Amino acid sequence: MTVTNHNLLITTDVVDEKSIKTLAKYSKVYKLADLAEDRLDEILPSIDCLLVFSWPIQLTIERLERMTDLRFIQSVLAGVNHIPFASLGKSVIVSSNAGAYSEEVAEYAWALVLSAAKKVVELHVSLREQKWTLRRTLDEGSEITIMRGKILGILGFGGIGQAVARIAKGFGMQVYAFSRKKSASRGVRVFTGQGGLTDLLKRSDAVVLALPLTSQTVRIINVERLSEMKRDGILVNVARGELVEEKAMYDHLAVNPNFRYATDVWWYRENRESLKTDYPFLSLPNFIGTPHVSGPSGLATGRPVRLASENTVRFLKGLRPRNIVNPEDYKTSYPY
Amino acid sequence: MTVTNHNLLITTDVVDEKSIKTLAKYSKVYKLADLAEDRLDEILPSIDCLLVFSWPIQLTIERLERMTDLRFIQSVLAGVNHIPFASLGKSVIVSSNAGAYSEEVAEYAWALVLSAAKKVVELHVSLREQKWTLRRTLDEGSEITIMRGKILGILGFGGIGQAVARIAKGFGMQVYAFSRKKSASRGVRVFTGQGGLTDLLKRSDAVVLALPLTSQTVRIINVERLSEMKRDGILVNVARGELVEEKAMYDHLAVNPNFRYATDVWWYRENRESLKTDYPFLSLPNFIGTPHVSGPSGLATGRPVRLASENTVRFLKGLRPRNIVNPEDYKTSYPY
Repeated sequence: MTVTNHNLLITTDVVDEKSIKTLAKYSKVYKLADLAEDRLDEILPSIDCLLVFSWPIQLTIERLERMTDLRFIQSVLAGVNHIPFASLGKSVIVSSNAGAYSEEVAEYAWALVLSAAKKVVELHVSLREQKWTLRRTLDEGSEITIMRGKILGILGFGGIGQAVARIAKGFGMQVYAFSRKKSASRGVRVFTGQGGLTDLLKRSDAVVLALPLTSQTVRIINVERLSEMKRDGILVNVARGELVEEKAMYDHLAVNPNFRYATDVWWYRENRESLKTDYPFLSLPNFIGTPHVSGPSGLATGRPVRLASENTVRFLKGLRPRNIVNPEDYKTSYPY
Repeated sequence: MTVTNHNLLITTDVVDEKSIKTLAKYSKVYKLADLAEDRLDEILPSIDCLLVFSWPIQLTIERLERMTDLRFIQSVLAGVNHIPFASLGKSVIVSSNAGAYSEEVAEYAWALVLSAAKKVVELHVSLREQKWTLRRTLDEGSEITIMRGKILGILGFGGIGQAVARIAKGFGMQVYAFSRKKSASRGVRVFTGQGGLTDLLKRSDAVVLALPLTSQTVRIINVERLSEMKRDGILVNVARGELVEEKAMYDHLAVNPNFRYATDVWWYRENRESLKTDYPFLSLPNFIGTPHVSGPSGLATGRPVRLASENTVRFLKGLRPRNIVNPEDYKTSYPY
């Protein structure tokens, strides 16, 4: 048995045996699924490291407060908005899994951009309902959007945003990115600040949301922002549903039939993402919704679990973990 | 008035006034829509040049036989399979409008590839029918296809095929192309002949049909070819419906639920493309259909009409027109 002073609690069953074996070289490993309630309560004060997928319901705030030795939390999900930052001690470091799903989510973003631009879903549903005839020209308002030469705006220029930008070049699009930092990227024009966001939204033909959900970004797309976008614009969300204000989005789609919103991510109900909405989005022809599948498809590659495990090993070895987030960004936005 | 010995008949109203003005510098121009039946019959023997969109029903075989001066036919449609080659004299040159819609159709091909790969249509329809719940992993068989590192096969490596290949590189895919000629294209592996087609179909994760419809390509995708493809493969058609054998396709989709066929183009009924099918494709979850809209969207750019007019001017000026097709490729396939 390895001598170690670390105690790691893994709260998800997505971590594979090989990764667990590696982690066990540097730490005593507990799996939440194997622990009875009383045993869990017994070990909580000794746990210094947590590897979570989304935040486990068993770890109530009361239990979290008893984890006095906790120093590090690693998320397998890319975003960390599920973590109860307000209840964490100052000495707890939290690492996101930013970049782990970038390629798969960027591909998914493009699937939604093109499905909306080319009206694939709307036309397919019309054919099923026998509402179409073949024609050689398209009626005004029923045109499909040509991407070449147009402007793609990307909000958030991390791993996903950069992968979305790379693909955009194959389509001959100009890329505008909204980012906190004026980062340099060849062929991409970066916008910062509130004025920069307005500029980007006004000029973009299609906009992809690839931001983390933080206290600065929650409902960043609201009535005002939507009014800045083109009337026949396209908005795609592969990040978090709560980046968009729900009522504002519904009203905007209802009033602007040529505007399109395509999303893989949904608003929160009782602190969890939910397919239930306050407004009947799915009855609108200019709305496309899929049930948050870009993440699971990324997960299937094994890459997110491998990266999360590797970063946890960094902590266990005494190295500085990557992707450490600033708790201040999340304190007021929890549970979103 | 210009002195000219050319008589041009334009049979479509998609040609703009500016193009007509240019054409009128080199030819007497007649517009079919302006001609009464008896006047049409009167001028037919003098017409040496035809500018058509799809073949006009007014130009029956009887009338065509009376067009003894006919020397040149220009199509505004990219493909020329609508032209009655078997009834044309040997001295008639026919030009396609190959390449005129390439970018728009290639974009549309990618919209269908990604809609199928990411199951956007299927998932959206499931949500509408309330058949989904959010889940963090996907069931076996309901995974979505990740493109990165996969192989994209392209049948036909003209303007559309090459534009599809360029976009594929942004997605990090390998590109295999099936072509008559062993043409060189950086980063694309070219396959020729029947054995080459088999190789390409066996290895490709997704296949895009971008071939002209000729006597060599009609129903090129049949029972045997489908059996060579991957069981969870994706087939996309942005060329002509008749490249695919209808019954074979339906049976293949019904038996292989993970195989996907996404098409913008349809089979022929009474010599015309029709949304009516012999089999209920639209009731299959692994079928995506849209009503041949990639062409009209390309037409909306004005580029196809401009290119067709410019090529017609080449003929009128005594220059060799571009995109001359070999009538032998079309004689046995008409009216497909």
